[in-house]
Formats: sequence, C-alpha cells, structure tokens
Amino acid sequence: MANIPQDKRILSIQSHVVAGYVGNKAASFPLQLLGWEVDAALTVSFSNHTGPRYGRWGGSKFDAAHLEDVFSALDANGLLRQSHLLTGYVPGADALKVVVRAVDRLRAVNPKLVYVLDPVMGDDGRIYVSESVIPIYKALLPRATCATPNYFEAELLTDVKILDAASLKAALRMFHERYRLPNIVISAVSLGTAELEKLGFTDVRDASGSTPRRMLVCSGSTIVSAPGELIKSVAFGVAFPELAEHYEGVGDVFSSLVAGRFPCHSDPAFSAHPVSPLAHTVELAIGSLQGILARTRQHALALANNRPEAIVPREGESADERVRRLRTVELRLIQSQQEILDPEIRYRAKQYLLPYLPFLSQFRLFAFSAFSLSASFNGRSPVDSVSRRSDYSNGLSRARSFTVSVFTSPPVPRMESWIIMMIYISMLRRSTITVRCRR
Amino acid sequence: MANIPQDKRILSIQSHVVAGYVGNKAASFPLQLLGWEVDAALTVSFSNHTGPRYGRWGGSKFDAAHLEDVFSALDANGLLRQSHLLTGYVPGADALKVVVRAVDRLRAVNPKLVYVLDPVMGDDGRIYVSESVIPIYKALLPRATCATPNYFEAELLTDVKILDAASLKAALRMFHERYRLPNIVISAVSLGTAELEKLGFTDVRDASGSTPRRMLVCSGSTIVSAPGELIKSVAFGVAFPELAEHYEGVGDVFSSLVAGRFPCHSDPAFSAHPVSPLAHTVELAIGSLQGILARTRQHALALANNRPEAIVPREGESADERVRRLRTVELRLIQSQQEILDPEIRYRAKQYLLPYLPFLSQFRLFAFSAFSLSASFNGRSPVDSVSRRSDYSNGLSRARSFTVSVFTSPPVPRMESWIIMMIYISMLRRSTITVRCRR
Repeated sequence: MANIPQDKRILSIQSHVVAGYVGNKAASFPLQLLGWEVDAALTVSFSNHTGPRYGRWGGSKFDAAHLEDVFSALDANGLLRQSHLLTGYVPGADALKVVVRAVDRLRAVNPKLVYVLDPVMGDDGRIYVSESVIPIYKALLPRATCATPNYFEAELLTDVKILDAASLKAALRMFHERYRLPNIVISAVSLGTAELEKLGFTDVRDASGSTPRRMLVCSGSTIVSAPGELIKSVAFGVAFPELAEHYEGVGDVFSSLVAGRFPCHSDPAFSAHPVSPLAHTVELAIGSLQGILARTRQHALALANNRPEAIVPREGESADERVRRLRTVELRLIQSQQEILDPEIRYRAKQYLLPYLPFLSQFRLFAFSAFSLSASFNGRSPVDSVSRRSDYSNGLSRARSFTVSVFTSPPVPRMESWIIMMIYISMLRRSTITVRCRR
Repeated sequence: MANIPQDKRILSIQSHVVAGYVGNKAASFPLQLLGWEVDAALTVSFSNHTGPRYGRWGGSKFDAAHLEDVFSALDANGLLRQSHLLTGYVPGADALKVVVRAVDRLRAVNPKLVYVLDPVMGDDGRIYVSESVIPIYKALLPRATCATPNYFEAELLTDVKILDAASLKAALRMFHERYRLPNIVISAVSLGTAELEKLGFTDVRDASGSTPRRMLVCSGSTIVSAPGELIKSVAFGVAFPELAEHYEGVGDVFSSLVAGRFPCHSDPAFSAHPVSPLAHTVELAIGSLQGILARTRQHALALANNRPEAIVPREGESADERVRRLRTVELRLIQSQQEILDPEIRYRAKQYLLPYLPFLSQFRLFAFSAFSLSASFNGRSPVDSVSRRSDYSNGLSRARSFTVSVFTSPPVPRMESWIIMMIYISMLRRSTITVRCRR
C-alpha cells in the first residue's frame, strides 16, 4: 500500500525565517492553500530575512551534514516520494551539492518528478550567496522541469546581459539550448516603452487606466514538439506595472505559485490556453501576486498614515527607522487567501516569436529531455517510448535508446523533418533509434 | 507608526519536521487558515517525528544559544510584539529556559499577551523530553493564560493521578490553585461509563448512533469573578468517542486551535455561550479535530484496501512495515480546510461543578491573576485597577497595590464577601488595598 508517489505532495527546499515572508515561509502557505502537502526542508533558520534590508538577524545556516542527514532519513523512511520538487535559497556550495543528490534520489523514485528550480542567488545586480554555487546551479539546470530566475540570476546563468527585447529572447533560448530545460520563466525584467513595443505590448495601462512610469515583463518559454514539425519553443510575456516600493519575498511566492499550478493537462483551462499552459500558470501567478501586493501596499500606507514616502527607503535612515519601515511592508499573505485561490487575471500573456533552434542543439534537446517533453506538453509526442539509463555522475541524464514515431498527420511528414531525422541518426553513435511511421 | 502589538500575530515556539504533521507543521497551517500571522520559532529541525513510532529520523535539535540568538534578533528588530504566544515541544531544559525569557520579553512589550502553553512532555505514561524540564514548566505555568496538557502531562504537573471523575476535577482545581492559571484544558482523558455518568454524560453515542467502546473527555476550567460573589471556576467537559488508531500530532493541532480561537469577547458566539467562552473554544477545536480525523481515517483505510487491521500497529511488525503504515496515517490537515474553518459541533460542553476554592488560595489567585481575570472573562471584574510591578525573578508575578471595587448590586454585598475581604486585608502586608463601594 502507498508505494506510489503521492499526488500533490511537494518537497520545498528553502530557508526558514521566524518573522516575515521569504523562502519556505513565503512558499508553504500558498501551496498548502492550493491543496499541496508541503514537505518543507530548511536550509537556514533565521529570525528574519537577512542582507542589507533588516541589517540585524539571528540564527544559523544548516550545514551540508545536517541536510544530508535529513534527506537520508527521509529516504530510509520512504518519505522521498514527492510528485513535485521546489528548490529556493541554498546559501552555500556544499549544501547545494547535497540538494543535487536529493534531486537525483527523488528522480530515481519518481521519474515523472516535476522540478521547479528557483536559482536564488541575488537581485538588482547584487549576489547574496557564495559565487561558488553558480557552476552547481548550471549543472542542476538540466535536471529541472522549469526554472524561475529573476533577470539578474538569468544573466548569471546564461552570460547574456538582459538589456532589451532581443537579449531577453536570447536568454530564454539559451536556457533551452545550453541547459536542455523544457520550461523557463524569467520572473521580471524592467523595460521601457520602445522595447515593450518590440515584444508586442503596445497599450499598457495600470489598474487606474493610466500608463505607468515603468513596466515589468515576466517571460517564459516551453519546448514543444508537434506531429510532423520541427521542435520549437512557445515563448510569451506578461507585462504589468512596476511598483515604486520593494517588497521582500515576492520571488519566492512567485516560484511557489508556478510550482503549485505547474501545467497539468487534466485541467482544460491550462491545455486550452491560446498561448501555452505555462503562459496560463504565469498569468495566474502574476494575478495572485498583484492582489497580494495591492493589499500589502494598502496596509503599509494605512500604518504610515497614508504617506507613500514613509514606506520607501530614504537616504541616511537610521537602523531603527529602516527596521520600523520594513515591518510595515511585509507581504499580507495570510490576508490574501482569496487572491491566492482565485486571482483576477488583469494582465494577459502575449506570444513571442523565438527563432527556430539550431538543428544540433535541437537534436540534443530532443534526446535529453524526451521524458520532460512528453510529460510537459499536451498533444502526441514524437517520442514514443524511451528506455533511459540514468547516469547522473557527469550531471547529465542520457537517453541510450528510444523509438521515434513519425506521425503521418498531415499525411506526408514534411520533408524537412525527414532530413533532420537522418542527421540525428547519422550523429547518434551510442544510441539505438527505431523509426516507425504512424497514421 | 506600527509600534502597537499587531492584531492576530502569534509566536509559535515548537518543533519542525519535513514530512508529517507535528509541532509547528501541525500548528501553523490551521492558524494561518484562521487568519493568523504565524511567527514560527523552531526548537528542532527533523526529517520526521521521532520516538518509537518511525524509529528512524535525521536532523538536529537547536541549542539554547541558537534560540537566544533568534529571540534577541527579533527583539532588536522590534519583532517580538505578538498579541498571542503558543509554546509546544521544547526538548531540553536549557532551551526551555530561553523560552521562559522570551515569554518575559513578550509580556514586557505587550502586558495583554495571551499565552497558550502546551507543556509537551509525553503521552500514555511515557515521557519523551528530559525530565529536567518538569520544574521549568511548573515555573512557567503562572505566566500562562491557558495550558493544554494531555492527561499524562497534567499528572506530571499536578502530582494528581487522573483515574476517575473526582481526580480529574482535582487536577483541574490544582492548576488554578497551585499555578494561579486562569484557564486550563486537559485535552483527553479516557473514562469508562460509570465515571462519565458522574460527570453528567449519561447518553453518549458516536456518529453512527451506537455507544462506542470507550470515550475520551476533554475538560476545561476558567476562573470567573462575578460582582458581589466569591471567585470561583466554571468547569466543563466535552465527551467524544475514542478512535482505535493512534494519529500523530493531534495534540499539537488541538493546542493551535485553542490558541487560534482563544476566547475573544468581541465575538458574541463566545461570550453568549451557555457554559463559558473557553467551553465554546474547546467545542470548536474538537469539532475540527473530529472532522480531520474522520478524513484521515478514511484516507488511511483507502490506502490499506479497507482493512482496518492494516492501520493499527501489530506485534512484531518490521521497521519497514511500521514506516509504511505510519505514512498512511499522517493527518489530512491540508485536505481539511473546511473542517478547520467551519467545524460541525457534534459534541457539546457540559458544565461541571467544582467546589469553591479555599479562601487563602482564592485570595492569591485573586491578587496574582487579576490582569488575566479581567482580560479573560466578560462581565465586570471586582478588581478595578491594578498597578503591577513585574518581578519574574522568582517565577511569580506579584501585584503590589490594587483597588478593589465592591459592587453594590445586589444592593447589600453578601456578608461572606465582606468577611473574606477583611481576611484578605489582614493578611496583606506588602500590598496596598483600597476598598471602594460602588452602586
């Protein structure tokens, strides 16, 4: 009994703080409200969020030995059988290496694991973890189903400086090509009107109907493979107004909402979405966040006697002033149950055009992410069955033999598909491919 | 701005486990669902619950220095301003001493703090913390607003062996008298039919209408002081059927529900309850728990192909069998949002009669818990104003001077009240009393 992976059970590996909402404190409640059993593994135990904002904190980080001990015991008790995995803030390289092993254990128990990786490293040009985690995240990305970096983390991982519409699209492609990642969401990039127009956002207004001073764009992309067509990606963006204030933990709530609503094709609202299931997930996550932030801002202003200047940082504020201000701008997560469960979607996804991926990288993607593909997008997959031997020792999972079905609908597969197939086969030395035609 | 204690913000000091629902994992979600901001301070970080049940676990306890560091940082950032406090599993004496200091800090910031103390020490005759915590809990009880021990913990704290109706009542009284505790709830005592009848439970049936093999009684008592009357207590019990299976974390969910709905007289459903506000709190908590347990049992049986014997422990089961069984009986907390928010009250509170408390102890109670009294029960309090100097160094909070109003309704205060008042005054050496008559 109960040896199958459990439905709606997510392992969330993130920080813990007593007061405020970041890490697992920000992620657990929204997920639980959405019906998830959240197994929260903690990477640190702090009094409050750290960094230059509060400036004072107590508590400690967990070392690699503690984390290894926790995951080993879970494994021994058969408790590493989650259907989903979400990883967030892990402060050091040694601890992150333990997380990599945990991912492999989970995947070994449940090959269909959905892994949403939030590579929490920094924000606004500032890195707040050890830089030694960057190469480990790069090795971890090919194991993920979806990653949710912010623009700065996306830059660190792709080496693409995201300045405009073109470089944003290049970064999205890079996640697919370099890391064979089937889904990518870059959470928020601040762009001016000209660049927004290049992405198709020609008429952007905020809730009051006026054009906001600056917009953020959350962009995503999913690899898709339609019958008889080349593998390509469906990319999209959601543009929404930027707030003047900074709220802590927004990224952590966002990644939890992406994980909690990760495209599930049993729900027609996702599979029938005009752009893609991931686009609908992102629309819902942004809808929830906008609701939470509006409520948070309203509360902060009420505490500050409706003086907006009192809730933004100012030059030379004392430590006590800063701390008093920060207390007022903590996310109103608990009060926003309605916004989490049933968000109003005010900002809709617009589809982007990304160029076809080059043949070679397309092949690799095809081979290495076959499982993810078939699990992550609706419609028939060209990959019919894959027998995979896991070989995680070099950080890659390789398909050794698989059967490719070429669907004959439209009746004659496009010639280009056949040409590419021939190239694939000629390049494959260590794999066995069976090509079958289907009607 | 924002220097007042925040409404509906609770500090919950308990354990953390990755998988399963005990400690803060069991307490946080119900509280959050009820609208509380839960500041969860962790005493341990384990993979799963420990003790003889799973038998295997990983992780570690936090030492006193870690906890002190966390509370000091919260204090420095002005984040120890919660309106409510809940404490649960604290494994060792040193850590518990740090908790005692945290209680004093919280009370210093917010004299109206509501503190629900769950003295988690053991169950079913087995103690699972260091015995050195017992005297510290005894010193902590006078600082609490309410305690929620199970029968075994009540025995450890009162030295009364709870075997029948009489000893149960004696234990309730002992919490009032020895520890000056204004509210006490002993969570569940297993009693036979004869003893149940002595408590007024003459017709007990379970949900199916049949008389269950054994009943549990959850009993509570609140100190009340009505105008012109002696101080007395209103005690009550709620009887409900005992389940054959053991579910982990039930006590932790219970204490969180007591804390989350602790009598608030702005809600007429509590202040108008025929027995007492605390009785209504307990009715609601038991209603929620019965709903959660029914759902959990149903799920466990479904996983075990409807074989009830598969979800109870059996002689000589292997470690793997035990672990597999335990996984199936984890509380279905996340799936029970409706039962937590809007419980069906199937089992109602019946009032008990406890004898008048002796004069001397009554006086002490009167003097020392004056603040708690006026905050914890509706109606006019005979204690009109109390100026209190906190002196926690010996574990007691003492009133040094106060004004007693004798309400002249009924027109002539009962003679006995005057006699007791004279005794009080004659015994008071270090306090100043002003007696005023009021119409």
